[in-house]
Amino acid sequence: MQNSRTISLSGVLMIIDKRDFDFLFAWLDVDTLLNRPRFCHSDRQIVDAVVSLACDLGEGELATHLRASDMVEPQLNEAGQVHVLPAVTKAVGEIADAGIFGMVFDEDEGGLQLPHIVYAATMGVLMSANLGTASFLLLTVANARLLTSHASRAQTTQFALPQIAGEALGTMCLSEPHAGSSLGDIRTRAVPDGRDEFGDRYRLRGSKMWISAGDHDVTPNIVHLVLAKVPGANGQLEPGSGTISLFIVPKILPDGQANDVAVAGLNHKMGYRAIPNCALNFGEGRARPSGADGAVGWMVGKPGQGLPQMFQMMNEARISVGLSGAMLAVRGYQLSRDYALERLQGRVSGTAAEPQVPIIEHADVKRMLLAQKAISQGALGLVLFSARLLDDEKTAETPEARSEAATLLALLTPVTKTWPSEWAQLSLHYALQIHGGAGYTRDHDVELLYRDNRLNPIHEGTTGIQGVDLVGRKLRRDGGAAFAMLAARIRATVERAEGMTGLEGVGAQVEMALASFEAAVAVLLAEPDSRTALAHGTPVLFALGHLVVGWLWLDQALEARHFLQDDSSAFDASFLQGRIRACRFFAECELPKVSVWLEPVLASSDIVLSAPVSEF
Amino acid sequence: MQNSRTISLSGVLMIIDKRDFDFLFAWLDVDTLLNRPRFCHSDRQIVDAVVSLACDLGEGELATHLRASDMVEPQLNEAGQVHVLPAVTKAVGEIADAGIFGMVFDEDEGGLQLPHIVYAATMGVLMSANLGTASFLLLTVANARLLTSHASRAQTTQFALPQIAGEALGTMCLSEPHAGSSLGDIRTRAVPDGRDEFGDRYRLRGSKMWISAGDHDVTPNIVHLVLAKVPGANGQLEPGSGTISLFIVPKILPDGQANDVAVAGLNHKMGYRAIPNCALNFGEGRARPSGADGAVGWMVGKPGQGLPQMFQMMNEARISVGLSGAMLAVRGYQLSRDYALERLQGRVSGTAAEPQVPIIEHADVKRMLLAQKAISQGALGLVLFSARLLDDEKTAETPEARSEAATLLALLTPVTKTWPSEWAQLSLHYALQIHGGAGYTRDHDVELLYRDNRLNPIHEGTTGIQGVDLVGRKLRRDGGAAFAMLAARIRATVERAEGMTGLEGVGAQVEMALASFEAAVAVLLAEPDSRTALAHGTPVLFALGHLVVGWLWLDQALEARHFLQDDSSAFDASFLQGRIRACRFFAECELPKVSVWLEPVLASSDIVLSAPVSEF
Repeated sequence: MQNSRTISLSGVLMIIDKRDFDFLFAWLDVDTLLNRPRFCHSDRQIVDAVVSLACDLGEGELATHLRASDMVEPQLNEAGQVHVLPAVTKAVGEIADAGIFGMVFDEDEGGLQLPHIVYAATMGVLMSANLGTASFLLLTVANARLLTSHASRAQTTQFALPQIAGEALGTMCLSEPHAGSSLGDIRTRAVPDGRDEFGDRYRLRGSKMWISAGDHDVTPNIVHLVLAKVPGANGQLEPGSGTISLFIVPKILPDGQANDVAVAGLNHKMGYRAIPNCALNFGEGRARPSGADGAVGWMVGKPGQGLPQMFQMMNEARISVGLSGAMLAVRGYQLSRDYALERLQGRVSGTAAEPQVPIIEHADVKRMLLAQKAISQGALGLVLFSARLLDDEKTAETPEARSEAATLLALLTPVTKTWPSEWAQLSLHYALQIHGGAGYTRDHDVELLYRDNRLNPIHEGTTGIQGVDLVGRKLRRDGGAAFAMLAARIRATVERAEGMTGLEGVGAQVEMALASFEAAVAVLLAEPDSRTALAHGTPVLFALGHLVVGWLWLDQALEARHFLQDDSSAFDASFLQGRIRACRFFAECELPKVSVWLEPVLASSDIVLSAPVSEF
Repeated sequence: MQNSRTISLSGVLMIIDKRDFDFLFAWLDVDTLLNRPRFCHSDRQIVDAVVSLACDLGEGELATHLRASDMVEPQLNEAGQVHVLPAVTKAVGEIADAGIFGMVFDEDEGGLQLPHIVYAATMGVLMSANLGTASFLLLTVANARLLTSHASRAQTTQFALPQIAGEALGTMCLSEPHAGSSLGDIRTRAVPDGRDEFGDRYRLRGSKMWISAGDHDVTPNIVHLVLAKVPGANGQLEPGSGTISLFIVPKILPDGQANDVAVAGLNHKMGYRAIPNCALNFGEGRARPSGADGAVGWMVGKPGQGLPQMFQMMNEARISVGLSGAMLAVRGYQLSRDYALERLQGRVSGTAAEPQVPIIEHADVKRMLLAQKAISQGALGLVLFSARLLDDEKTAETPEARSEAATLLALLTPVTKTWPSEWAQLSLHYALQIHGGAGYTRDHDVELLYRDNRLNPIHEGTTGIQGVDLVGRKLRRDGGAAFAMLAARIRATVERAEGMTGLEGVGAQVEMALASFEAAVAVLLAEPDSRTALAHGTPVLFALGHLVVGWLWLDQALEARHFLQDDSSAFDASFLQGRIRACRFFAECELPKVSVWLEPVLASSDIVLSAPVSEF
């Protein structure tokens, strides 16, 4: 089939249909973005070259060890060192050599100073090839971004620049065995230990859990960013999150000594196995830097600022999680579409004597493919839209525009993290269904994508936590101003769709979903008991996700329609019509769910909250 | 917590809350069923003893090797023999020793002659402990049931009775590499080879795919039931399914010779690993029984009857698949409830100085538990209701009642197979979410249940195939008479709920869903083009599933209400109120989805069917 892009003419595995990024970049007007002062040294050719390079790396270095990295998990040896698959080490090195770790950083930090949206596309390509391997990049960039925002110049030079160059990798160490979502309860202690060129020095002692890339042999050094508390005068840790500070704790100290950081164990995961996930002990005495136990660390910024600082990193990591969900869904769509084009089975009509047809001819397979496309491209559109907001927050022309982007991004972050994560799982469910029994075997990658993505609704704040963030904070802030701003943007798109055949119905569905959501927000804002409001967190989050994705689909469809009428468009008509169909499918089959999720909110239902524990 | 039943006083793992079965047996009036002539040798005490025995076996023999059977997959050795984990062999032997293989068979066949609903509960208990191991039972009973229905006396004695005794295990061999769902395309040939005491003998040659328990060392012999075609006078196989016949092909022939059946390979599955899944070659010459190649087999019944005969087995197997989905969901609920009762994290309100609370106190965790309960117990109710119909089909007092049960069961079989399979996956998704990061590791069983259940929407006919069965056959048959009968039963339950506080609203939701579904059926029956109707198969199947589960929940809630008003009830009030709450939750949060799924049907949407392949 001419539209099957999986195998190129030269027989190389093709994991990306570049038309998708070309279209989304056009829709989100990346060319104009590139004219802003921060990016004007760059141009569209450079951007395309970087994305192409990522495609080559993804296909040549990352996708090639996808199955191997699942079969051969990271190993912890008797000396307490973690070894990863050599192919992972090699691939991360290639990503570093390509300069991808430095894409969003300033030129004077050794970066390429490119927009976030371009970095998102680049990282997304790598994620769709091998999520675990690409995650070394994600964490390291987020770590270095935090340092360049909050650390001193000496700290940045010592600990961020090697990460920007891809010569050291980063982690974030938040959770502890008894403190997962509830970070105020952490017990890791940081005791003052003097001061040196990198600032106030401390000795840290405590156990951290769920540390991705917590140890490995990909790079010699690892830069841990660790949340800990400094004991008060009475030697006790104060409860709550207001006393959490942030510390840089490198695996190898600047003077070359090993730090007192030990791997307590590896977590054996359902998927996502190219990257190790560790329990780490800080200060258990495994090493004795400068003759004493305790992990040596330097405080970043001021005491008690750990959580707000970490949240910058978390918020960007949340967008990256959404990106990975979107890209696994995109990859799953490609695999099941290609399978459906090749696999012969049954007949659409006619007699048994006729040859079997490709299963893409069966309506139910088409339905699943359409659902996969609506979810995966809808998710990708949402994530790139958010990445563009991140660029606008930093580089938009006016302070008002920057502030507006920041407000919108804060509102959309829980949606951008959750919606792709949760719906990618359904999309990948369809990818397995289309493969039939074969999809359940390790002979096909869809089962692996399904296992890999299953972490996404959990890490960087579960779906439930995102719901609490949305309903408890983001929707309430400034009396609901952020949502009002979003609603105005949505209405503007609906108005543009008026009178346009095929899209008018979509506009009506978006408008209906918006009206439901506005009514629900009114109920939530009027609710005096925050527990009642929080009980609706997840359904409200799902509803907002559908509303926003439906809106962005409509906006994309308007763009596709525009290109259809433009004879000079680089996009062929079936590609554009396919996008419009995916938009219509989403509006018809998915958007009506918004009111189902919101019904219990509008009825102020207490069925969940009033359930006594004894009934379970 | 007093309601946590996972660990008994003696410290033994408890995988079943027997109150669930006590309640469902009361609701489905098993005591009255036991008074029927076929079952009157038995009584409730015997039934309870069998279910208790299954609980002991499940806890003591099956659950104990759940993780091991996932870690150590079945192995194919160089001699072409499949070895399973020794614990699997031991557990299947214990199930056989307990007489469970013979539960539903006649006493003169060596069976216990117990109702299907009791067998379903018994098998369900074993499935919740270890689905893969329990599946040896499922397949063998289905195989022997087919033989006792269709095979000759000599065939039954030779091939069914050892299975009823659990001394040989059975398979069904339908699919071939190029013929999965499209069985009319099978190419396995059966050539006449004389006649003996077991009937017309044939030599079979062909490749079969996806054969669960296709080879193993659990029992010395394996009884394969194989679909194949007898060539016509021209030596060719006729296309289509009308020429498919059914053959008994034992691994070891009655005279002790090895048959010409070879394992071509093992499928490496995402889960469900206690039971091997094989590609089998028949007649490749690996063995030469009586000096010639070709697998020796005997035809069951008449030529061309293979598919209808196999469908009896398939229909019962489909109910068993639904059962396994329900029971994995039940197990997932128990595990996440117990985790939520023990895991301390965060606070509901108050200050950070207060101790952390069990996460079951958080509204979003409660919401997920309630959803899990509504799904898992709703699914179990649906499956046991269908098993009861299977009993009624055979033993109801009047021919009319038997015929009505058969009609209803035929209509509900695609729902009973699909609904628990699909929704269990969502229920287990919540079970993982409640465990947080821990749920994604192999330290907890929920990730394994999630992988195990993922096969259920695929095997024994994918969800898409079930949708085609429902829309293309079951709903159309006799001008929609079966659905009209179902609708009358649903309305009767709704009427019983009138005026009952707390359940009136549920009745209204059920009534609304029913009205939507009736309207959709009218559209489907009037649709002249069957392709258009079939394109809506899966959404219609989902809608009927929700409608039926909602109806059965309402019926269960009426029963719970009855017990609440009965001082002599054996059930405590929180148990009963918990059931009523799960019913209300389902009505409030799930039933409104019925109209969302049906909207495109009512609008005769062609968005899926009209999509050209070039758009994908």
